[in-house]
Amino acid sequence: MKRAELISIIKERQSFLCVGLDPDVNRIPKHILEGENPLFEFNKAIIDATRDYCVAYKPNLAFFECHGIEGWKAFEQTVQYIGDSHFIIADAKRGDIGNTATKYAEAFFRKMPCDSVTIAPYMGEDSVKPFLEFDGKWGIVLALTSNRGADDFQFSEIGGEKLYERVVKQTVKWGTPENLMFVVGATRPEYIRGIRALAKDHFFLVPGVGAQGGSLEAVAEAGLNKDCGLLVNSSRGILYASDDTDFAEAARNEAKRISLEMKSILQEKGVF
Amino acid sequence: MKRAELISIIKERQSFLCVGLDPDVNRIPKHILEGENPLFEFNKAIIDATRDYCVAYKPNLAFFECHGIEGWKAFEQTVQYIGDSHFIIADAKRGDIGNTATKYAEAFFRKMPCDSVTIAPYMGEDSVKPFLEFDGKWGIVLALTSNRGADDFQFSEIGGEKLYERVVKQTVKWGTPENLMFVVGATRPEYIRGIRALAKDHFFLVPGVGAQGGSLEAVAEAGLNKDCGLLVNSSRGILYASDDTDFAEAARNEAKRISLEMKSILQEKGVF
Repeated sequence: MKRAELISIIKERQSFLCVGLDPDVNRIPKHILEGENPLFEFNKAIIDATRDYCVAYKPNLAFFECHGIEGWKAFEQTVQYIGDSHFIIADAKRGDIGNTATKYAEAFFRKMPCDSVTIAPYMGEDSVKPFLEFDGKWGIVLALTSNRGADDFQFSEIGGEKLYERVVKQTVKWGTPENLMFVVGATRPEYIRGIRALAKDHFFLVPGVGAQGGSLEAVAEAGLNKDCGLLVNSSRGILYASDDTDFAEAARNEAKRISLEMKSILQEKGVF
Repeated sequence: MKRAELISIIKERQSFLCVGLDPDVNRIPKHILEGENPLFEFNKAIIDATRDYCVAYKPNLAFFECHGIEGWKAFEQTVQYIGDSHFIIADAKRGDIGNTATKYAEAFFRKMPCDSVTIAPYMGEDSVKPFLEFDGKWGIVLALTSNRGADDFQFSEIGGEKLYERVVKQTVKWGTPENLMFVVGATRPEYIRGIRALAKDHFFLVPGVGAQGGSLEAVAEAGLNKDCGLLVNSSRGILYASDDTDFAEAARNEAKRISLEMKSILQEKGVF
């Protein structure tokens, strides 16, 4: 999906919600778990319930890979089922040397119809660039993450700036706002503004709203740009809004609630 | 595989060779490609040919994932075929927040019988520790990689030290020489000595000998410890020693050549 189309669906749906698909067998409702192909059936129900309120889905590879081949099948089915009406993020945190990175890009962009892959930046330029060489596809580079461990290295001081700032400054040279996004955690809205100054036209994928405690309003205040420029993710808050037979309806209600908040933010800020 | 057993097979085989399994359809010999299940058949032939000369195998996930479900099947078959006579490294460069990292660890340690997974450190402690909580299993953290992009962030100066040194210093606090190794590229032997000083009992997985130009002797000189402490990887130099029907024999010869060099280094240095 190209940037213009992504902006157009955000405008049309008045939502910049990304639904994270982390199908955890310890939390999927019992009646689904007992059926056939529970990972896909759970995702399918969530997708059906939330489609109208979001613009992106972010399946988290770990929750599929832990089931081996069956999990990988469910991942492929899920991505196929989403289709091209939504921006698809393979949350895979890949990153390896050049020829290997190209194979990962082929896995998600050619073998499967994902629009983007999350990438760890530690190995530098040749681990990132191969993801930026596919038309209409995106690399989403980890800048500042929403977990506690972000403090261990991302905030290290390097010549008057933090490592995560260095990562953004370097990485923007390798791609464009048409093929490169950044992961910027919602739990640290005070830093989002600084990253926006370094990458003013790029989209940010923002995890950490909801279960991890980030505030949508604070994120929007700090990160919105003229094209919106944000994809705010919620995973557990939507997927596990109920652990019973009404889980899909509960997910729909939660996605709707967030999207309405987004709509009023977009209007209030006069983004479109 | 526990540390004592790893040391014992190194001693027994007088080799610290790791064979990297990067089955690339652009380089697999034509007669294998035309058969059924070429990825697994290629790996099987390579494993049969090199088993006696190495102590570890390192399948690179990207080369399987790019074939989707079929690739994932071939990965599982390959790991099963290696068996427990060799240390198995899932070269997957994973790394994500705590609950997700646990799922990745389950994928490789429970669902599949791998001994270890390579991990990117960018997200810090909670992205690394879940891999260290399985008895006889290992996390192998990227410290200094062998690619050109290593210069982009790994050499950044942080309060008088480089980022890769900070990574090693922090990470050794999270694990022990029984569950934690580091990736240290062979193309920079001058830095291996420094990392050895920070992690004197830990094993290092050393890529970059062979096709990437690193020297085995220089690596050994800088990195050996009293238990050997090195797993030196060669991928393309062994896998593609010949691109014809004699590829397995050529791979055997190359693995044998390297292992004989290792044997004489171990003897010369009086390691065992």
